[in-house]
Amino acid sequence: MTDQRIFNFNAGPAALPLQVLEEIQASFLNFNQSGMSITEVSHRSSYFDEVINDAVERTKKLLKLDDQFHVLFIQGGASLQFAMIPMNFLSKDDTADYVNTGTWSTKAIKEAAILKKNHTVVASSEDKDFSYIPQNIQFSNDAKYVHLTSNNTIKGTQFHEFPDTNGVPIVCDMSSDIFSRPLDMEKFGLIYAGAQKNLGPSGTCMVIIRQDMLDMANAGLPSMLKYSTYSSKNSMYNTPPCFGVYTIDLVLKWIEEEMGGIEKMEEYNIKKAGLLYDFIDSSSFYRTTAANDSKSLMNVTFRLPDEDLEKLFVVKATENRLGGLKGHRSVGGCRASIYNATTMEGINALIRFMESFEKENK
Amino acid sequence: MTDQRIFNFNAGPAALPLQVLEEIQASFLNFNQSGMSITEVSHRSSYFDEVINDAVERTKKLLKLDDQFHVLFIQGGASLQFAMIPMNFLSKDDTADYVNTGTWSTKAIKEAAILKKNHTVVASSEDKDFSYIPQNIQFSNDAKYVHLTSNNTIKGTQFHEFPDTNGVPIVCDMSSDIFSRPLDMEKFGLIYAGAQKNLGPSGTCMVIIRQDMLDMANAGLPSMLKYSTYSSKNSMYNTPPCFGVYTIDLVLKWIEEEMGGIEKMEEYNIKKAGLLYDFIDSSSFYRTTAANDSKSLMNVTFRLPDEDLEKLFVVKATENRLGGLKGHRSVGGCRASIYNATTMEGINALIRFMESFEKENK
Repeated sequence: MTDQRIFNFNAGPAALPLQVLEEIQASFLNFNQSGMSITEVSHRSSYFDEVINDAVERTKKLLKLDDQFHVLFIQGGASLQFAMIPMNFLSKDDTADYVNTGTWSTKAIKEAAILKKNHTVVASSEDKDFSYIPQNIQFSNDAKYVHLTSNNTIKGTQFHEFPDTNGVPIVCDMSSDIFSRPLDMEKFGLIYAGAQKNLGPSGTCMVIIRQDMLDMANAGLPSMLKYSTYSSKNSMYNTPPCFGVYTIDLVLKWIEEEMGGIEKMEEYNIKKAGLLYDFIDSSSFYRTTAANDSKSLMNVTFRLPDEDLEKLFVVKATENRLGGLKGHRSVGGCRASIYNATTMEGINALIRFMESFEKENK
Repeated sequence: MTDQRIFNFNAGPAALPLQVLEEIQASFLNFNQSGMSITEVSHRSSYFDEVINDAVERTKKLLKLDDQFHVLFIQGGASLQFAMIPMNFLSKDDTADYVNTGTWSTKAIKEAAILKKNHTVVASSEDKDFSYIPQNIQFSNDAKYVHLTSNNTIKGTQFHEFPDTNGVPIVCDMSSDIFSRPLDMEKFGLIYAGAQKNLGPSGTCMVIIRQDMLDMANAGLPSMLKYSTYSSKNSMYNTPPCFGVYTIDLVLKWIEEEMGGIEKMEEYNIKKAGLLYDFIDSSSFYRTTAANDSKSLMNVTFRLPDEDLEKLFVVKATENRLGGLKGHRSVGGCRASIYNATTMEGINALIRFMESFEKENK
């Protein structure tokens, strides 16, 4: 319980830029002089048109998307995408490749299986408890797509380079690292990201889809489960999640105007994660869990000498206004999620706390 | 463009209670002394548990639901429910009855057809441009459910009594009148409602489902498209739309504590709509479009002597801080959507404006 804001290391929903929150707050009763809250404005109004068009344009600009790409806003989170992807792209005789790098990949694979779609798990790091990103993967020749999870929030691993798939489009879950770095878009047929880590509030999933993927999508699907429904109506076949799209737009504006664009954002993220990993590596009390070449810039997972100390660490951190440091319930340990909106001030405060906790408990 | 708030007659997203908006605004940077915005709080935290549990409990209390009913929060709006309902409840040889009372029913029927599920349209008011609610409907003996749209936002009609379906559960789209009146829950197997009219921001759909409906649902569906995924995890199989659930909770609290509960809410709605209909009926300048016994308490649709006057009416109303009075783009005319959050002050301001517009333009 605190009257002040904390340093928020939650894995998602996660910290948002303070400036963005302040802008939402200031205009919450009267958005853009409409006389209405953003939550009360019609999605068919010019007020909201400006918002969604701005969010699409900023996405295209930041990620340098050409006109082949469509930017969509879909509900249901990444979890609905796990199903929509095989539903849209795999017909009876088609198949897809999946790389399994942890819980989220596993869930994506599970949905393809539920739908009885042909798929091959071409690589997995399950043999070492998902602590690394597989290299030198042999992809199928006939896959319609290759599914990857770019960043694994639970185990703290991340693809630092995306594999060469011989031209097969990569379909990538970027929920936890979208807009954290520039992308070579030539490799991707579809990118999706639940907003609640790097983009905005939960309840909105950004989908970036290439025209040729739209062209190959199955007909005969329910309207809300077809990508073309969204691409043909600027994501407004039905009422979109307006507050989410609005917040995303403000976050993208912040990346562009306050952080200086996506290359600067990446530099900042490398610097933040570098400081934290360097500190942990210099300590004999804390240890990271991910393989060196696979460490995530977004989720720094680490352990203490024993579980009792880990529990105490989380309690004491919370008392010191450092929140969300408990590891995912499925793996235990500790985790600092340091997405775009996490500040250097937050990283420094965390390191200072970790130093003093180590001294007191070594 | 206005520095003041307007009287908002939008059909959805629509007016929310000012008190609710003010509470969201006041605590937006620090929710419940968490040191975080509600948009930054983990859905796995006690902070959010309290919110979602409170929203479920308030729903159960206001609608007098017994333990057979589960309250779920699903993304994708009512439009995704149009597909989920036949997916979950109709197996190969099953069939369902649909009553067609307008655009939204038509869309629900279309999704059942896309899914190639057996269904019968047992009644329709299309013969008179959906201006009335069909009576004395002959339902099938073997239907798994009867699908109804309780209130039709576009044509301004509403079921004032729900039909006797010989025990077949009614599955009802109540997007535009949920919580506007008490319900006899014995008739309903499933109720769903996109939040953006009577409940909160767009992006959250409330689903109230009876245990026997859950029991008869198909297995083998993608996780996010199965009701049991939501009922077994308190709507948190994946990250729910937290901001939406939070706002809904505040709106339900407002109904209970400020408006005095659902019976009082209904009285207020009858009074508001009554004033407006009485005024229109007393005028030879304005005329309503819905049949007398089918008039909606939520969406008052009306016409002026000609389309030019209707255009001028909307323009002048907007200048007088009365927003959202244009009829749906598919039908034209005018419409005042007067959901729960519309105040008597707003109704009176609208009537005063209509009087003076009539004088000036008769």
